[in-house]
Amino acid sequence: MSKNKQTAIVPIREQNYAEWYQQVIKAADMAENSDVRGCMVIKPWGYAIWENIQRALDIMFRETGHRNAYFPIFIPKSYFEKEAEHVEGFAKECAIVTHSRLEPDGAGGLKVAGELTEPYIVRPTSETIIGASFAKWVSSYRDLPLLINQWANIVRWEMRTRLFLRTAEFLWQEGHTVHETEAEAMEETRKMLGVYATFAKEFLALPVIQGEKTESEKFPGAVTTFCIEAMMQDKKALQSGTSHFLGQNFAKSSGIRYQSRSGEFEYAWTTSWGVSTRLIGALIMAHSDDNGLVLPPKIAPSHVVIIPIYRNEEEHEQVITFAKELEKQFKQLSFEGVKIYTELDDRDLTSSERNWYWIKKGIPVRIEIGPRDIAQNTVMVARRDQEPRDKEAVAVENLVSFIPTALSAMQEGYYQRALAFREENTVEIDDKDQFYKYFTPKNSGQPEIHGGFANAHWCGSEVCEEQIKTDLKVSIRCIPFESKEEAGKCICCGKESRRRVIFAKSY
Amino acid sequence: MSKNKQTAIVPIREQNYAEWYQQVIKAADMAENSDVRGCMVIKPWGYAIWENIQRALDIMFRETGHRNAYFPIFIPKSYFEKEAEHVEGFAKECAIVTHSRLEPDGAGGLKVAGELTEPYIVRPTSETIIGASFAKWVSSYRDLPLLINQWANIVRWEMRTRLFLRTAEFLWQEGHTVHETEAEAMEETRKMLGVYATFAKEFLALPVIQGEKTESEKFPGAVTTFCIEAMMQDKKALQSGTSHFLGQNFAKSSGIRYQSRSGEFEYAWTTSWGVSTRLIGALIMAHSDDNGLVLPPKIAPSHVVIIPIYRNEEEHEQVITFAKELEKQFKQLSFEGVKIYTELDDRDLTSSERNWYWIKKGIPVRIEIGPRDIAQNTVMVARRDQEPRDKEAVAVENLVSFIPTALSAMQEGYYQRALAFREENTVEIDDKDQFYKYFTPKNSGQPEIHGGFANAHWCGSEVCEEQIKTDLKVSIRCIPFESKEEAGKCICCGKESRRRVIFAKSY
Repeated sequence: MSKNKQTAIVPIREQNYAEWYQQVIKAADMAENSDVRGCMVIKPWGYAIWENIQRALDIMFRETGHRNAYFPIFIPKSYFEKEAEHVEGFAKECAIVTHSRLEPDGAGGLKVAGELTEPYIVRPTSETIIGASFAKWVSSYRDLPLLINQWANIVRWEMRTRLFLRTAEFLWQEGHTVHETEAEAMEETRKMLGVYATFAKEFLALPVIQGEKTESEKFPGAVTTFCIEAMMQDKKALQSGTSHFLGQNFAKSSGIRYQSRSGEFEYAWTTSWGVSTRLIGALIMAHSDDNGLVLPPKIAPSHVVIIPIYRNEEEHEQVITFAKELEKQFKQLSFEGVKIYTELDDRDLTSSERNWYWIKKGIPVRIEIGPRDIAQNTVMVARRDQEPRDKEAVAVENLVSFIPTALSAMQEGYYQRALAFREENTVEIDDKDQFYKYFTPKNSGQPEIHGGFANAHWCGSEVCEEQIKTDLKVSIRCIPFESKEEAGKCICCGKESRRRVIFAKSY
Repeated sequence: MSKNKQTAIVPIREQNYAEWYQQVIKAADMAENSDVRGCMVIKPWGYAIWENIQRALDIMFRETGHRNAYFPIFIPKSYFEKEAEHVEGFAKECAIVTHSRLEPDGAGGLKVAGELTEPYIVRPTSETIIGASFAKWVSSYRDLPLLINQWANIVRWEMRTRLFLRTAEFLWQEGHTVHETEAEAMEETRKMLGVYATFAKEFLALPVIQGEKTESEKFPGAVTTFCIEAMMQDKKALQSGTSHFLGQNFAKSSGIRYQSRSGEFEYAWTTSWGVSTRLIGALIMAHSDDNGLVLPPKIAPSHVVIIPIYRNEEEHEQVITFAKELEKQFKQLSFEGVKIYTELDDRDLTSSERNWYWIKKGIPVRIEIGPRDIAQNTVMVARRDQEPRDKEAVAVENLVSFIPTALSAMQEGYYQRALAFREENTVEIDDKDQFYKYFTPKNSGQPEIHGGFANAHWCGSEVCEEQIKTDLKVSIRCIPFESKEEAGKCICCGKESRRRVIFAKSY
C-alpha cells in the first residue's frame, strides 16, 4: 500500500497496530469504554456480532447433547476456597460483594452498610458454584453424563484492559460436564475443543491451532487445558477458546459423587470449556484492514446496504421505490444457512459518506442505485474484500444469485487469506540465535512487530519456558495435537526434546 | 375434583397454594434454591422456557425498531446517587462491591483486600449506567429516537424470596429509549406496554389488564409507570411487566441533552420497560394444575413425547424403529410459526412412570406406541389439557395434522380458561362492608384465599390507598386504560371519585 493513499482508519496497521485496533472499533461503532473500571459498553453493532456467535455456537452445543441452564452470579468465599489452585488463580483479581445496603452518611451522601456475614465473589468462572449444584444432581451413573452450558457475564478485576480482548466484565459461555469415567471426560474435553475449532473456521473464518497448554499456562485447578490459538495480523497469538479436563479435582472439592455400576460411590470426572466476547477481538484483528472492520459474512449483523443516489425529489422517489422493491426481494435470500439482512441507507449524506460509513462497519456488500442504473436495469455493486473504489455493474435480475455467491466467496476468501498469512509467518527454528533474532522487534517503531509463530523444540522444563518468557516475552502457546514425535534439541537449553511446540508473543 | 383422587402434586392447590407452587417447580425440575442468599439455579427445563420467552420478545422488540446492546453490571455509587427518588427506591436492598482481592488471612483462610476508592452497586436496574452512555451518544435531534434493549442479570437484595417470583438475582430485559418530545416518549411507553400485553396473550396464554400505577406504586424516578397485571389461580394479582415514562428526570440527572431543530440545547425525554424471569412464575401459577406444570405450547421447550411400550427385546426393536421414524417425521412440523420439538423417552421405566414424568413437566402431547398399535397403524395420544388417563387412538397418517391442531387448540384453550377464571373472579363493588368482606379470607386454612379482583371507586388519595393496604393487604394494582370516567364514591372514604381502579392482593 502506498504511503500517501488515504485510509479510513488512522493510524494504519503498520504505523501503530494497537491504536489501529481501537480506531477500528470506534469507526465501526462496536463498543466503548465506560466509567466503570475496565468495563466496556458493547454497542448494537458489536453486540449483534456476539448474538450471531451465540446463535451458531448454541446450535452446535445442542447438537452435541448439551442443555443451557443458569447459576448464581455470586460465589460464597467458602466455595471459592475449596480448590486450592483454583482460588490462587483468581483471588488476586476479583470483585467482592461485602455489603447489602446504602445509608445516609449524614453529609448528604450515602455510605455502605449491611455487612454480609460471608463475602461473595462475583463469578470469575463458575466451576465451584456449578459444582455445588452438580453434587445435588448426580447420585447414580444413570445421571451421567451431565452436559450443561451457561451463557453469562463474568468479572475478573484485570489491571490492563483493552476492548473485547481483556475487560473486567465480559460475556461468555461456560460448558460444565460430569462423566462416569476419565476416558469419557477426556473425550468430551477434546470434542468441545473441536467444536470451537470448527466454529472458528466456519463462522469466524479463523484458522486455529488446536493443542495442549503447558503446565504453567493451564487453567487453575485443571489437570489439562486444551486451547485453540489464532494468529493476528501483527503476528501475535490470541488464545481464542479453552477446554479443560478437570480430572476429579473439582468433583472432590464440590463432592460430586455417584453410585457406580458396581454399587460403589465414586468421584465423578468433570470438564469445563469456554469462549467469550474476546472472539470479537480476534475477528477484528484477524480480518480488518486500514479502512476498518472486515466481517466474515456468516457472522455479520447485516450483509447488504442499498445506497440510493439522486439529485432531486423526483429522482429520489423513483430511486427509493426501486430500492425498497430490491430490499423486499432480498428478504428471501440466504447463503450457507444464514439469512441475509439488508440495510437501506437513505440518510441525507453524500454517497461517498454513506459508502465509507458502511465500509468502516464492514458490511460485506454495497449496492448503489441511481436513475441511470434503473434505466439500464443494473446496479453498481462493491464488495468489502475489494478496494473501496472497485465497483461492478450487475444486472438487477442477477442480484439474487450474485449476492449469496459473493458472500460465500468472501467467507471462504477471508479464511484462506488468514491461513496463508499464518503459514507465511510460521517457521521451524532449530537454532537458538536464530530463535532470538526471530522474536527481536525490527526497528520499525512498533516494538511488538516480530517474526510470527516459531515451531521449535522444547525439553519440557518450566525453567526453559520461563527463561524465554523473560528474555523475549514469548510463551509456549500450545503443544499442537498435530505435532508428531521427532527427536530434537530444546531451543533454550539444548537438551533432548521429543516434539516441537508453538512459541509466540501473545495477547 | 374428588378429595381422594390421586394427584402428582402434593399438596394440591386448594390445600396449600404456596407449597403447591414450589412442588410444581420441583416436579417439573425447573429451578432450585442455591446456597447463595436468595439466588436460584434455573435448571434446563426452566431455562429453555426463558429462552423461548427471549426469542419471541426479541423479535417483537426488533420489529418495533429496537437494537440490543450491553452495559456494565456495576454502577458507581456516584451515578446511583444522582436521581434522588431512584436511589431511595433501591438503596436499601442492593449488592455492593467494595474490594477487589482476596489475601491469606494468616489463619489458613482468605480475607478481603484491595478496597476500591468508590464502591460499585451491582445493577438493580440500569437507568443511571445506561444514561451515562446515552449522554455521550446523543447530541442532536438527528440521533433520536434512540431505541435500545438489554438482556441481563439483575440483583436486588430482597429479603423474602420465592423461585422465579422474587429472587435476589434474576434475569430480565430492560428497554431504554430517548426521544425528542414528551409525546413521543409517552407513545413509546404505551407501545411497549402493548407489546408486553400482546406477548402475554399470544405466547403465555395470559390475559392481562393494562393500566397505570398509582403514585405510591410507580417506579422510583418515573413520572408515570404503566403495567400489565394478571390473575393467578389463587386470585391474587401478579405484576407481569412494567413500562415507565421517565419524563426528563433521568435525562437531567445523566445529562442527556440534544440540539433541537431550532438549535437550542434541550433535555431529552426517556423511557424504560422490562419483563423478567418472573414471567415463568406467572406462567406456572396461571395454568398449572394438581398434576404439575401446564405449558402453553408456544412457549414449551418441547411439545411431544413418544413413549415406546414393549415386553421383550424383539418388541423393543420393532417399537423403537417405528418411534424413531415418527420422531423423524415430526421434525418437519410446526404450528403458528413455532417449530415442534419431540422427545423419545425410551428409559427403562414403566409406561406409567414415563407418562407421569412428562405430565409433571407439562409436555403438551404424549404418544404411546406398542406392538398392537403398530399392527393397527394407530397410536394412543394424550393431551396435557385433558385428564391423565384420557387417551385417544389416532391413525398414524393423521398425526402430522393432529399434533399442530391439538397444540393450537391447547394454546387457545388455556387463554380462554384463564380469561374466564379472571372474569368469574372480578366484581364491581360499591359498598365498603362488601369490599372488606370480599377480601377477608374464608375460613379455609389458606389465609390468602379471598374473592379476587375488585373493580371499585377510589378518590385518588394516598391515605385511602394506604388504609386499605393496612387493613386488608390489598393494593391498587392499576388504573386500567379501559376504565372510563364514571361518577362514584371512594370505596374507602366515600368522597367523590371519577373512575374505578383494580384492587387486589398481589405477589
